[in-house]
Amino acid sequence: MADILKGIRILDLSQVMAGPFGTMILGDLGAEVIKVENPDGGDLCRNNRQYLHKDESAYFLSLNRNKKSLTLDLRNEKAREAFYDLVKISDVVYDNFRPGTAKNLGIDYDTLNKINPRIICCSVSGFGAESPYKDRPALDLLIQAMGGVMSFTGEAAGRPPVRLGYPMGDLGAAMYAAMAVLAALVHRSISGKGQQCDVAMLDSQLSFMTYRAQYFFLEGIVPEPIGTAHATSVPIQAFRTADGLYVTIEASHQKFFRNLTKVIGMSELWADKRFATLAARALNREELLRILEEKFLERTRDEWVELLVAGDVPAGPVNKLDEALADPSILARKMVVEVEHKGENIKMVGNPIKMSAMGSESFTAPPTLGEHNAQILAEYLNYSEERIREVLAPV
Amino acid sequence: MADILKGIRILDLSQVMAGPFGTMILGDLGAEVIKVENPDGGDLCRNNRQYLHKDESAYFLSLNRNKKSLTLDLRNEKAREAFYDLVKISDVVYDNFRPGTAKNLGIDYDTLNKINPRIICCSVSGFGAESPYKDRPALDLLIQAMGGVMSFTGEAAGRPPVRLGYPMGDLGAAMYAAMAVLAALVHRSISGKGQQCDVAMLDSQLSFMTYRAQYFFLEGIVPEPIGTAHATSVPIQAFRTADGLYVTIEASHQKFFRNLTKVIGMSELWADKRFATLAARALNREELLRILEEKFLERTRDEWVELLVAGDVPAGPVNKLDEALADPSILARKMVVEVEHKGENIKMVGNPIKMSAMGSESFTAPPTLGEHNAQILAEYLNYSEERIREVLAPV
Repeated sequence: MADILKGIRILDLSQVMAGPFGTMILGDLGAEVIKVENPDGGDLCRNNRQYLHKDESAYFLSLNRNKKSLTLDLRNEKAREAFYDLVKISDVVYDNFRPGTAKNLGIDYDTLNKINPRIICCSVSGFGAESPYKDRPALDLLIQAMGGVMSFTGEAAGRPPVRLGYPMGDLGAAMYAAMAVLAALVHRSISGKGQQCDVAMLDSQLSFMTYRAQYFFLEGIVPEPIGTAHATSVPIQAFRTADGLYVTIEASHQKFFRNLTKVIGMSELWADKRFATLAARALNREELLRILEEKFLERTRDEWVELLVAGDVPAGPVNKLDEALADPSILARKMVVEVEHKGENIKMVGNPIKMSAMGSESFTAPPTLGEHNAQILAEYLNYSEERIREVLAPV
Repeated sequence: MADILKGIRILDLSQVMAGPFGTMILGDLGAEVIKVENPDGGDLCRNNRQYLHKDESAYFLSLNRNKKSLTLDLRNEKAREAFYDLVKISDVVYDNFRPGTAKNLGIDYDTLNKINPRIICCSVSGFGAESPYKDRPALDLLIQAMGGVMSFTGEAAGRPPVRLGYPMGDLGAAMYAAMAVLAALVHRSISGKGQQCDVAMLDSQLSFMTYRAQYFFLEGIVPEPIGTAHATSVPIQAFRTADGLYVTIEASHQKFFRNLTKVIGMSELWADKRFATLAARALNREELLRILEEKFLERTRDEWVELLVAGDVPAGPVNKLDEALADPSILARKMVVEVEHKGENIKMVGNPIKMSAMGSESFTAPPTLGEHNAQILAEYLNYSEERIREVLAPV
């Protein structure tokens, strides 16, 4: 692990995606992340058995590297005491419970703050602590839908909405939660005090609306889906090519449009009044797109990318996931890493945050359930064997 | 502004989206963000004049609240000296130049580190410092395309790819950059030393692939677009309703599917062997969807949401952006804020990171170009009027 956050210990009660993605980022940066899991199966996504690898959920593996696992049934008083003892020697308690659950378990911020005033608590939930929806389940699809992005992701107005390929409802909240923890650590380095952080999946979605929200607030513009195209600038979009794959170009600026007409061997388009300016191209969008759509069918995706890049037109392939994961830039940036897991190396996506003081990165495999019980209870807490038995006893 | 990061000063050389979104997050948390802009127009997106408000770009407004503006032409030696003087009293230098530009301007990390060993430099770029593509322009559409997500966002295999409604190619990198800065601040609070951070838009995209990447690495599964549906679990998707609007449900779990059949008045589906288990529903997906698609056309979106939520089925509307911004949860969470701008209050999206030590939040309007020249050069640097004239003189 990188040692940027060396010495920071996180008690991570979160599960599935919206929580664990955030603590994985912090673990990649060197924080010690201890998953505190219920002994009855642990993190729910350990049971996502859609794809298994050596009898472990591939889904779980992808979100829990560089973490330890401790099983505690917090309804057991001895286990709760152990949790309190851990809070004394930890920096962060992180959960994605629904609002109210932490209090019911006796581990809410007000309680933990009395045990360790430096403790930072961070909760990720669907709608936040004081939302009218706080008791509803929140799942990525619902959050993408309620947050508005699905309504303007899709082929064109009138066609069905589509969801984003990756679960940004979950991931976005996890990223803000990681930021909240880091900001609270910065604040504590000055104030000496911990605090409570509260991040909602739905809020996070809205924060991504930036200029779209501003256009609505100031001009009443409600966005509609538009495929891969830009709302007003032409041509910015994907085109189908000879092999059925797609190439994207961003050639609306005058310089790039001119370069485009050269690359495709149609300099006459640059001389054509219908297409000679940004405004003209917007007006005559359909005509221009018809010409370009036909033209791009003449070569394969990769032929076009090579020609366009050589001709100084911003362009790139619409990569399938396997292609993206094998892209030379991704490999050069060490964005595919190897992690030893049950005696063999498996590949995972790497850490996108590159920092000069990190030294070389290393990653440990996601833990098996309760793998670090002995280490944490005996070594960190100096508990006797008998006490460990009590802590781990079924309720 | 919230005061979590009070006392942290950021010299922000970034422009458009991938940079400024990150520093806006840090500004929302109370950092002092000084935009250092070229005097010849400043941040490129000040010139995005698609929608104007009181002669200011609405696009620019949406990304630059809680910031100050200082104009420096760094090719001017006196201006560069002023920048160095600011580095002595600042914590972070943040840019989204292409790799190499900072060095050409004489403001690369090696140079600045000699001026202030505590300085943290963070660069956001399309592909990163040592990418084979480092000299290519990077734009959100290309990054979404190259990163793979577009290839599995869309209606169904065989249909065209679509881009995500919001520019996650830009936003994702900005969020990782904000995390990098925060992590470097935590590290500095212990080590006393600054460092250099490097975040690439393309890398960030791959980090979002999580379980999709794991399924590819372990099982060779390459995802295809699937509209709003889940790849294997049924029913998880959006359905068109009587008013042409869509409702989303996540009712694949047994309990929720059973609740669904009650809400729609079709308990016979629960008793039907074709649909009685998760596995059966996956096998008979098309038949089940045909029945449900027809059923959902009988009521409006909002009627369905009310019935489904009351019947304990995870469900939500596919909101248009205007609806999302007016959602009761969003309003309760103060995710729509008012900012005074040129004598009137305008609305903006709020800060999704809620922290107990923040106190009440306030937001200042995005700065006009060079608005804080006098304040920064005279008050922070104690420069004489003559020296200020030299610093601001055209090259």
